[in-house]
Amino acid sequence: MAKKSYPLPKVYGLLEPGPVVMVTTAGKDKMNIMTMSWHTMIDFEPPLIGCVISNRNYTFDILKTTRNCVINIPTVELAEKVVGCGNTSGRDVDKFKAFHLMPAAASCVKAPLIDECYANLECKVVDARMVTKYNFFILEVIKAWIDPSRKEPRTIHHHGRGAFMVAGKTIKLPSKMK
Amino acid sequence: MAKKSYPLPKVYGLLEPGPVVMVTTAGKDKMNIMTMSWHTMIDFEPPLIGCVISNRNYTFDILKTTRNCVINIPTVELAEKVVGCGNTSGRDVDKFKAFHLMPAAASCVKAPLIDECYANLECKVVDARMVTKYNFFILEVIKAWIDPSRKEPRTIHHHGRGAFMVAGKTIKLPSKMK
Repeated sequence: MAKKSYPLPKVYGLLEPGPVVMVTTAGKDKMNIMTMSWHTMIDFEPPLIGCVISNRNYTFDILKTTRNCVINIPTVELAEKVVGCGNTSGRDVDKFKAFHLMPAAASCVKAPLIDECYANLECKVVDARMVTKYNFFILEVIKAWIDPSRKEPRTIHHHGRGAFMVAGKTIKLPSKMK
Repeated sequence: MAKKSYPLPKVYGLLEPGPVVMVTTAGKDKMNIMTMSWHTMIDFEPPLIGCVISNRNYTFDILKTTRNCVINIPTVELAEKVVGCGNTSGRDVDKFKAFHLMPAAASCVKAPLIDECYANLECKVVDARMVTKYNFFILEVIKAWIDPSRKEPRTIHHHGRGAFMVAGKTIKLPSKMK
């Protein structure tokens, strides 16, 4: 293959396409929503998730203080609301109201579920040692919810600067991988 | 939405669908390939990547010792080889030979590029403090390669147990997000 050198600052667009998620938190007197793409599984069971939440985000201080959040997984039908939440700050906007999203009570944490998302993961912060250096939180999923009627949810996967890959078909290959 | 409780051990299949990648390393006398889905961007510039490489994998010791690797991003045409590399161990198999993949020299690291992959990221380990507890390495991308002829590369995204979502179409939304 003929290849050309690729700019380092654009590399993130190649690697981040996990599903875009919306992180909800509950501060002292209001709830918030943050759009996030930088997350990875860390362990299977209990499920541990590592994620980057910038200290410039309104969510950062709330998460550090309350140590709980919900990771909500939207599908393409919600794409405009997802981007809207990414373009605004909870400092200025009540995003549930502004984007007509429905908060629902979680069972184990104070942060709300976003009802419209096909899956919701209630999480608590279990390791904050990498927060100062990398804004990197390790979360444990303590309760998970899914809409069983959604068979092949068309998640969206950020490629940077407003370009989103929409999940296509699923293929199955004989695999020993978990 | 009517939701049901979702088993915690299956949660990883919801969150991991970043592109499946193949990590190459060069040990003392042989090269190896490992299939990986647990990675996230950590920072934009220099690009930092966090990834989980189990201490049961042959790649783990090589990476700890040599502190360099290449992250190769395959597309759906390579899906069977990707799964083949995930189902075998470099302890027993020369995966480049077994799966007819072509190693190419990297420019900054000893680990090889996989020529057939549309993008290759040459990396060095910059932080190994989370390796003992979480098998979590922080890599810095020091050189990146891409095949400019691939406009919408159909990456694959692991949902667990051999199910892979194939990248669908791309949509563009007005976004202030990087």
